[in-house]
Amino acid sequence: MKRRVGALIYPVFEILDLFGPLEMFALLEDDFSITLVAEKEHEIDGIGGCRVVAGALFSDQEKYDLLLIPGGRGTRAEIENSAIGDWLQRQSKTADLVTSVCTGSALLARAGLLDGRKATSNKEAFEWVASQGPKVDWQRRARWCADGKFFTSSGVSAGMDMTLAAIQHLLGRDKALEAAHWAEYIWNEDPSNDPFTKESR
Amino acid sequence: MKRRVGALIYPVFEILDLFGPLEMFALLEDDFSITLVAEKEHEIDGIGGCRVVAGALFSDQEKYDLLLIPGGRGTRAEIENSAIGDWLQRQSKTADLVTSVCTGSALLARAGLLDGRKATSNKEAFEWVASQGPKVDWQRRARWCADGKFFTSSGVSAGMDMTLAAIQHLLGRDKALEAAHWAEYIWNEDPSNDPFTKESR
Repeated sequence: MKRRVGALIYPVFEILDLFGPLEMFALLEDDFSITLVAEKEHEIDGIGGCRVVAGALFSDQEKYDLLLIPGGRGTRAEIENSAIGDWLQRQSKTADLVTSVCTGSALLARAGLLDGRKATSNKEAFEWVASQGPKVDWQRRARWCADGKFFTSSGVSAGMDMTLAAIQHLLGRDKALEAAHWAEYIWNEDPSNDPFTKESR
Repeated sequence: MKRRVGALIYPVFEILDLFGPLEMFALLEDDFSITLVAEKEHEIDGIGGCRVVAGALFSDQEKYDLLLIPGGRGTRAEIENSAIGDWLQRQSKTADLVTSVCTGSALLARAGLLDGRKATSNKEAFEWVASQGPKVDWQRRARWCADGKFFTSSGVSAGMDMTLAAIQHLLGRDKALEAAHWAEYIWNEDPSNDPFTKESR
């Protein structure tokens, strides 16, 4: 049975946060199906004015096996949006895996879902993200963090490395390598290999 | 003045071929504006059923400074589509730069635009792509190729490396590094560093 990936979209989401991970899932089409999910309007503009169409709205009450929460400049407008917070809390209860890219982890943190867990985020927005979840064990040097069913990644491109690790976690290393091979993607397999950390500055 | 990027979309395009490069342009919003361009229908499904909305159709007769031609499974259905071939020929006359990712170079080759030039493509689909342009000087070991105003890349993820090289070509290395930094992208700067070549097998 295919795992259902529910990928959240909201205005001014970061396009590579979303489509980098989704490429890896889409290449394994026998294992995953993808639904873009928006709050209440189907057409949503990402950065650069790139418009995408949601296949489901929150009101459809669909459930997903795996969540993907992208970040981007739009996160700052959504951080107070209780409809997103409620959706994340409800979906996270039943999902097998909850993943975020970049400042997407701010939305998970604000919903209280990362309390007591290791998590990371974009290194340029780290202080703001960390302030959304004072009880989170934020990791400043991490390409991505896996803690239980929560996989959070650093900025934008790190989402692809995290997604391949999530695929490895679910289906084994060969499947992750298969997706990376088809995407001609040079997988950074070591979560501690984070050239963008500011830890040592 | 911003350079206008016209990014072609067609059914079953590869989502990372498109949105990897567009992320880099979108991060430099003072330098580039983005338009998704489709033949005759605005709503187009990429792989994984990810639906996007074109901001312009061929009939709008807009001109672009830079073209981005993604690849993907859908290329094989479009290779005989003369509307795409005509659009590529017309746009390439006036564009400053014509870029392709993965099997997108098959569309350029079929339109005769790569004749006598060095070009590359996805390594898993190489024979099919090469057969679309017998007069092209196809490069089997190349993350990307730059020849005049034509920048063609290898499969999927290679599009991001090529795009950063194209940005460097237009605006200098600092701008390319700026985009890579914001995207937390580990730029493979060497076009001959191609781990996916089958040359030596």
